[in-house]
Amino acid sequence: MKIEHPYLMFLGDAPDQLAAKTASGIVHWRRDWCLGQFTLPGCNADLGLPHMDIAAAAAAGCRTLVIGVANRGGVIPESWIPTMVAALEAGMDIAAGLHQRVADIEDVSRAAAAQGRQLFDVRHPTRSFNVGSGERRPGKRLLTVGTDCSVGKMYTALAIGHELQRQNVKSDFRATGQTGIFIAGDGVSVDAVVSDFISGATEWLCPANDPDHWDLVEGQGSLFHPSYAGVTMGLVHGAQPDALVVCHEPTRTHMRGLPHQALPDIQTCIDGHVAAARLTNPAAECIGVAVNSSGLSSDAERRRCLSDIEAQTGLPTVDPVIDGVAPLVATLI
Amino acid sequence: MKIEHPYLMFLGDAPDQLAAKTASGIVHWRRDWCLGQFTLPGCNADLGLPHMDIAAAAAAGCRTLVIGVANRGGVIPESWIPTMVAALEAGMDIAAGLHQRVADIEDVSRAAAAQGRQLFDVRHPTRSFNVGSGERRPGKRLLTVGTDCSVGKMYTALAIGHELQRQNVKSDFRATGQTGIFIAGDGVSVDAVVSDFISGATEWLCPANDPDHWDLVEGQGSLFHPSYAGVTMGLVHGAQPDALVVCHEPTRTHMRGLPHQALPDIQTCIDGHVAAARLTNPAAECIGVAVNSSGLSSDAERRRCLSDIEAQTGLPTVDPVIDGVAPLVATLI
Repeated sequence: MKIEHPYLMFLGDAPDQLAAKTASGIVHWRRDWCLGQFTLPGCNADLGLPHMDIAAAAAAGCRTLVIGVANRGGVIPESWIPTMVAALEAGMDIAAGLHQRVADIEDVSRAAAAQGRQLFDVRHPTRSFNVGSGERRPGKRLLTVGTDCSVGKMYTALAIGHELQRQNVKSDFRATGQTGIFIAGDGVSVDAVVSDFISGATEWLCPANDPDHWDLVEGQGSLFHPSYAGVTMGLVHGAQPDALVVCHEPTRTHMRGLPHQALPDIQTCIDGHVAAARLTNPAAECIGVAVNSSGLSSDAERRRCLSDIEAQTGLPTVDPVIDGVAPLVATLI
Repeated sequence: MKIEHPYLMFLGDAPDQLAAKTASGIVHWRRDWCLGQFTLPGCNADLGLPHMDIAAAAAAGCRTLVIGVANRGGVIPESWIPTMVAALEAGMDIAAGLHQRVADIEDVSRAAAAQGRQLFDVRHPTRSFNVGSGERRPGKRLLTVGTDCSVGKMYTALAIGHELQRQNVKSDFRATGQTGIFIAGDGVSVDAVVSDFISGATEWLCPANDPDHWDLVEGQGSLFHPSYAGVTMGLVHGAQPDALVVCHEPTRTHMRGLPHQALPDIQTCIDGHVAAARLTNPAAECIGVAVNSSGLSSDAERRRCLSDIEAQTGLPTVDPVIDGVAPLVATLI
């Protein structure tokens, strides 16, 4: 798959800004790909983009209608369908990050077929993969891992990619989740792959490359999260990372969604992920820590948190949003 | 799913005994469930069961036609279809362990619907699962793990189940692969589950039970196999094992299917699996080693191998086929 841009961002009747979290992430990282937003009555989200209807968006050159919004109750409402059909008829593709496939909606799939347009349900893999081989391949790879889910793994990988590009180092961001896929234009939602093929799908995602090229692979889950560690393990083995960056959110009191499950301490988390990575890349090392400090109440607290982690791990430690990632990139090159 | 027995074993035109490996395993562990075998011209496999045609099998009380044979080229040949339809018309269900679903063969699915019979494609999960919660649940669980794939994990779990039953300890074998599912009559082929749900499917498979009841969970893959470690990780976390048994094949020179990948040494393998298991069960311990010594050339060599491993690990070490598993069960109770 290769999702074409520019995008028209569809927000439907999103009840609040949080429901448009995926769309917000896309606009943050790909502002120049996002020409406008389209909302339905009742929408309470706003991406700060010009409002456009389908005709205006098509005239402006939009190639894809992006549905980056959580739908109420998990089911695509009837009220969204005319917009989707109109976009297809205006020559756009549709890319959606919903659990329900847009390709399963009869009116939408019929219109896509009639117009020769593509439907991308990015949560659902559309191709099959081989099982992972574990064979060493050229090219450098960095994987973000975490003490938990939702601690900044995508953001950190993207920020490192930007910093490498600024320094004229060849690199690609490799997306493993829905928001990342919209930002990259392609990728694999690894948690939706059949479990026999997790590492194989990851090998396909970040294949052999030039020896001085970096793939920045978006991490998923954590080896210490009882729900998702299998996904993380396959991702670590398939990525064969030379470098790991551990992401952390210091105010988390338990693993996301599991009130009974404690977080690992950072050194345990580093050691566990490095040990797993060395199965397919004996040279794997953790090169730094990325902290999402937005939950800390003062700058003093933030500085103390980072310096404590730095002292404990001996690794450069930054909040990518506040400090940037130059100290991490410095250890890469 | 609950596959009803007795079984009629279908061997088709299996080119050799190895192609009937699944069927052989079923007969080994469930001889009393297997009333007969049915072969087509060209079949070179033999299970040592009475030959029966469909009418004779139905008259003898067979409830299910079991297709436990690897098919040539991965596709079900036309020549098998009349037998399947005849079995359905005679009132039997069909259970198949093929990659291709028998439910996708139009003549077969039409006959099943017309007769009100069930089709079990045991490699393909037929239900959806929740993500794993990692919450502690009552009941005791033992999981077999391994230094590699195909080193005796199913055999060892079944042998421990037999020994527990002999000692009047309540237990159930929990199947995670196709042969195990035919032997148990149900189970989940965990490597075919979507990767987000590996640990959740395992929690479903071996749920809360009496405090003195043992679930014997069939392991899959190895945390040290780059192709399948994600499956193993989710299985370890979902099983919450109190006890692990490490299975090993001492003549393996590399990980199965991966000539470049070395085997872990046994202590590393024990430590890695125990550390992973302790995330969801802090009391998890490795209680013994099961060696498949069939590749060793003499009894002296076999005895030396077992005593070396016993000295190295400090754990009871047996070949379950030759020695039985009483020394392992002794450490459980």
